[in-house]
Amino acid sequence: MAESRVDDFLGGRLRIEQPCSGYRAGADAVMLAAACPARPGESVLELGCGAGVASLCLAARVPGAVLTGIERDHDYAAFARSNAKRNSMAFHVVVSDLAEMPRDLRETRFDHVMMNPPFFPDGTRSPDATRATARHEETPLATWMDVGLRRLLPGGTMTIIHLAQRLDSILQALAGRAGAVAILPIAARKGRDAGRVIVQARKGARGPLRLLPPFIMHEGQAHLRDAESLTADAQAVLRHAVALLLNSRV
Amino acid sequence: MAESRVDDFLGGRLRIEQPCSGYRAGADAVMLAAACPARPGESVLELGCGAGVASLCLAARVPGAVLTGIERDHDYAAFARSNAKRNSMAFHVVVSDLAEMPRDLRETRFDHVMMNPPFFPDGTRSPDATRATARHEETPLATWMDVGLRRLLPGGTMTIIHLAQRLDSILQALAGRAGAVAILPIAARKGRDAGRVIVQARKGARGPLRLLPPFIMHEGQAHLRDAESLTADAQAVLRHAVALLLNSRV
Repeated sequence: MAESRVDDFLGGRLRIEQPCSGYRAGADAVMLAAACPARPGESVLELGCGAGVASLCLAARVPGAVLTGIERDHDYAAFARSNAKRNSMAFHVVVSDLAEMPRDLRETRFDHVMMNPPFFPDGTRSPDATRATARHEETPLATWMDVGLRRLLPGGTMTIIHLAQRLDSILQALAGRAGAVAILPIAARKGRDAGRVIVQARKGARGPLRLLPPFIMHEGQAHLRDAESLTADAQAVLRHAVALLLNSRV
Repeated sequence: MAESRVDDFLGGRLRIEQPCSGYRAGADAVMLAAACPARPGESVLELGCGAGVASLCLAARVPGAVLTGIERDHDYAAFARSNAKRNSMAFHVVVSDLAEMPRDLRETRFDHVMMNPPFFPDGTRSPDATRATARHEETPLATWMDVGLRRLLPGGTMTIIHLAQRLDSILQALAGRAGAVAILPIAARKGRDAGRVIVQARKGARGPLRLLPPFIMHEGQAHLRDAESLTADAQAVLRHAVALLLNSRV
């Protein structure tokens, strides 16, 4: 296993060990956790949990949420378990491919499913093999969505963060299976195209689709220093574990 | 035929007669025209042209575009023809149902197709019968999209303005048939959900989907007076016939 490093998340409330190279969780995982509307006592399944950042961010915001993660890479699953321990949080991590889940998981349904499927940000293959494995869509997005929807209780919510350019595939996977879809565009700066979207839907629901105002990550028009340039909204989510409730916004 | 009235569009550059009651074209039609990237000499087909507002707005901005409209209601088609004459513009209007177009149209392909399909803004039926006919989705959205895509030349652009809540259906209709999809959310005010979307795609193209920053119609948070509260961007499009080029925005 490659070298690892411990990073702060949520303003230091969470300490996460992950490899220095290869796939590294960042703001996307934190945003995903902020958007999951789980309440204490409800069950949450994270598909492809990696080193556990999203689920553990959720645990930090919603103590009492019952968290399960699936991760097919043994090393990342081991990080996820040790990160849960490091932060004194309960997180059940199952090592499994999405398409071949163990029977007990296949027979369990959850109140919430969340996922941050890997991708190539720029559409090219990474020269780094680990990174390539994690980031390449080896498991098609449609499979992630299908597996997630199957594992949801009726009325349960699915939350995904992904490249904005995959919005069509995400909506297609939800068609006829989940409704009350809310789309939150996430843009690096005001006036820019969305780079990511968070899409949330309720299994079996019929409510109309909503396209929300964009969430802006950075102030100003040029990149100066990340830490300094985060918008107040982004600071609230990334540093202070504030919820990003897609279905309470008007 | 009911009473009619002549209204100004594009700051008085265009005078349009349409019925006082029933379906009346407004800002949506003007926005649609602004988003169609037609150049002089190129052919444009408008599906469901009503009294001709969108096509004639396009004629005002792009003299030399070759315009054809289809409208199944004889009275609206008559208004479209007289409106073209009133504004000294060439506009070929065909009275036809979308699903049963005359042969010569079925054998013609266009550089651009645009449409503003009718809908119930609030999901209910209108008490006004004419309005109901025009606004109800008697012809399913999938048919509008399919007919439009069939009438496009390879590489031609399809532009639609519609309820934001139908974004999933619009994208589904484009899947595998048109790419380089650009989505422009249109919100009444900053921070609000999008009420409309303009979606543009190129037939047979493969470029990635883009989710653009929202176009905001009104300043401020409350409704005072429309004319006063339009944003500078909205005034540019609605009063000064400025183009809304979805594919030149960065």
